Amino acid sequence: MRIVDVINKKKHGESLSKAEIDFFIEGYTKGEIPDYQASALLMAIYFKGMEAQEIADLTDAMVRSGDQVDLSRIEGIKVDKHSTGGVGDKISLIVIPLVASVGVPVAKMSGRGLGHTGGTIDKLEAIEGFKVELSNEDFINNVNQYKMAIVGQSGNLTPADKKLYALRDVTGTIDSIPLIASSIMSKKIAAGTDAIVLDVKVGSGAFMKSLDDARELAKTMVAIGNSLNRKTVAVITNMDQPLGHEVGNANEIQEAIEVLSGHGAEDETEVALTIASYMAVLGGAFKNIEQARKHFEALIASGEAIEILKKFVQIQGGNPEVISNPELLPKASKHIEVKADLEGYVAGFDAEKIGISAMMLGAGRRKKEDAIDFAAGITLKKKIGEHVNLGDVLCVLHTNADDTTEAERMARTAFVVSNHHPGEVKYIYEIIE
Amino acid sequence: MRIVDVINKKKHGESLSKAEIDFFIEGYTKGEIPDYQASALLMAIYFKGMEAQEIADLTDAMVRSGDQVDLSRIEGIKVDKHSTGGVGDKISLIVIPLVASVGVPVAKMSGRGLGHTGGTIDKLEAIEGFKVELSNEDFINNVNQYKMAIVGQSGNLTPADKKLYALRDVTGTIDSIPLIASSIMSKKIAAGTDAIVLDVKVGSGAFMKSLDDARELAKTMVAIGNSLNRKTVAVITNMDQPLGHEVGNANEIQEAIEVLSGHGAEDETEVALTIASYMAVLGGAFKNIEQARKHFEALIASGEAIEILKKFVQIQGGNPEVISNPELLPKASKHIEVKADLEGYVAGFDAEKIGISAMMLGAGRRKKEDAIDFAAGITLKKKIGEHVNLGDVLCVLHTNADDTTEAERMARTAFVVSNHHPGEVKYIYEIIE
Repeated sequence: MRIVDVINKKKHGESLSKAEIDFFIEGYTKGEIPDYQASALLMAIYFKGMEAQEIADLTDAMVRSGDQVDLSRIEGIKVDKHSTGGVGDKISLIVIPLVASVGVPVAKMSGRGLGHTGGTIDKLEAIEGFKVELSNEDFINNVNQYKMAIVGQSGNLTPADKKLYALRDVTGTIDSIPLIASSIMSKKIAAGTDAIVLDVKVGSGAFMKSLDDARELAKTMVAIGNSLNRKTVAVITNMDQPLGHEVGNANEIQEAIEVLSGHGAEDETEVALTIASYMAVLGGAFKNIEQARKHFEALIASGEAIEILKKFVQIQGGNPEVISNPELLPKASKHIEVKADLEGYVAGFDAEKIGISAMMLGAGRRKKEDAIDFAAGITLKKKIGEHVNLGDVLCVLHTNADDTTEAERMARTAFVVSNHHPGEVKYIYEIIE
Repeated sequence: MRIVDVINKKKHGESLSKAEIDFFIEGYTKGEIPDYQASALLMAIYFKGMEAQEIADLTDAMVRSGDQVDLSRIEGIKVDKHSTGGVGDKISLIVIPLVASVGVPVAKMSGRGLGHTGGTIDKLEAIEGFKVELSNEDFINNVNQYKMAIVGQSGNLTPADKKLYALRDVTGTIDSIPLIASSIMSKKIAAGTDAIVLDVKVGSGAFMKSLDDARELAKTMVAIGNSLNRKTVAVITNMDQPLGHEVGNANEIQEAIEVLSGHGAEDETEVALTIASYMAVLGGAFKNIEQARKHFEALIASGEAIEILKKFVQIQGGNPEVISNPELLPKASKHIEVKADLEGYVAGFDAEKIGISAMMLGAGRRKKEDAIDFAAGITLKKKIGEHVNLGDVLCVLHTNADDTTEAERMARTAFVVSNHHPGEVKYIYEIIE
């Protein structure tokens, strides 16, 4: 087999066979197929797309390109969730304790944040003592005993995806749905889960800017999951503005506590309950979403939910007192109010700008090596649909940084203020299953 | 400027600016832009094409990527020709003396053959003593004095094209008309000519298999020429079968002698006279094609044409006696008749197979380093439209090689014999100017 023939085949719009896809992924991972042939094939895939079978085969080949986490010693249907990335997305912090509480094992492997999006692992590390480096043994034992554990990504998972992603980044081949879908799903599948709930974000703060694209990505990922025997559901959610009011690390922990205590932001609560319910149903704890939803609402109202979060923190070595008393979370030295310079309704957001502003304040990383300031972040005081008077506080920047000029400018220009009310905001667009 | 932005721009179907194209070609030639980004851009160009201005800019950037031959010391309008490559294509051998004889300077820089197509330089070296390595000084002096000289390619002409061509070859991006057209035209323009007649071949033995594609390529190249101030005409000619009856080196010299002596094959003569006429008109020797054509026909009939070929050979250090007595050309030790195993009309050819068979017999090179056997080649005894009886000789293979089994099989299967007469064969399809 010659890779140039595979490139030509895809270029002419033909489907690639499993053998051809394996040949590409194996050869590329080993370095036998050079980057310049891989990038030509990726560009041909960008233009000609892939059939469902090809995408499943590509995902499977990427899964097999490296280590696969063996979770077979965990009892029950292991359910994972994945978000395509947004700003202020603290859903994982909320759903882990909820889902675990109904006996569904959540064995979460999670990454760190980069650029304008945060990482669950980083957020949890804002809690004093919280450890995300667990041995495989401890990880599995914790899940079996408590139904929940989180660990930072380790091992040589999907090296083909890592290499391809780096190549796509510099060759204009990021925005291809077959490539995005197979990249996400290969990582989830290699992490050993049985079922997956996908939170596909759409809007100004998401990678997918249109509902059509988000729907196509969601359908593609669900098809991959079904093809590779992982029960998969995708929830398409709104990322026209950050979720909730907090963007950062310590302050996102605080907001997760609020949701689990029953007084969280409406959008955050709605998305978290929906995702937790689908996870619980996939995990076999409930017959349908309505039952699960009711159960979780009661769990929160009774005060039990917050106790499970406390337990989670404790299991992972963190100080559980932080959950009862969020004042113990890291605090920034400066709190800068960003005020409205015109009047009207908040009609929209450039949510990505909020993420970048938070990064500049110290809450995120420009480069992988950068350190994070857990205390840094942004509290949104106005969200879409709210009325703003001249001089009203739009948001508060929390930081220990010296120069905040650019972060302030970014945050201010992230708000779109208009004379007209933008109408009702939807939190969840569609469920694809 | 970042090359990934240039890739994305082309990927979205936008036109690239001159600055962007220069940035790409300069960066790629210097090795600052890696192959994997270049191949992604080439694939995007394959899918999205290029506007006339972009193609002209690309050609110009490739011309400027290396040395440019300075022919300014040659008086008159220097006219060159280029063939997109065929089998048995000895047109250059015929047109050089014809065009030079009317005072139009032909300063020909020519390449060697590779694969199934031969090279003019190789063919001329079949003549005892013929030298193709001339100093720049001698080359220019010869053109000024005799209006004709040929030299092998030397110097660092269009390094960007060389590097890109090698990359295209292994990334499935050869068959893009903007890329083919700019590659050909950059080489011609860097070689210093004022005007160009392009012989665009179409058919089974040519790179362009359809008239539509050939026409698009021809139009694209003529537009580049006009854009870069080189008068350019394209003649679209038939390559459904080899030109004339001879394929090889010594035997193609012999056939060129026949054409210039007035008893050449009809197709060969027709194409040669057409191209010579356009060259003579572009060079300012005649007002129109009809006048040029009549003049050349008379020149051949009078016996003068063959004398000019003799002169050409002499100038380049070759033995002019070979022209009067082609028996002096290298002779093969074996002559193998390939006979028809069925009856009917020759309805078509896989002309490329004839070229490959000739290569196997020793007339061409598999790899650049291979030596050529000037005596090797094929004489076609039947061409399209001719009737064949069982056992009739289809062609004769001339060779010094030991094992000719595969070459014989190739040659035999190159002939398509049918019950039906294929109809009239056109030699020239269209002129694009």
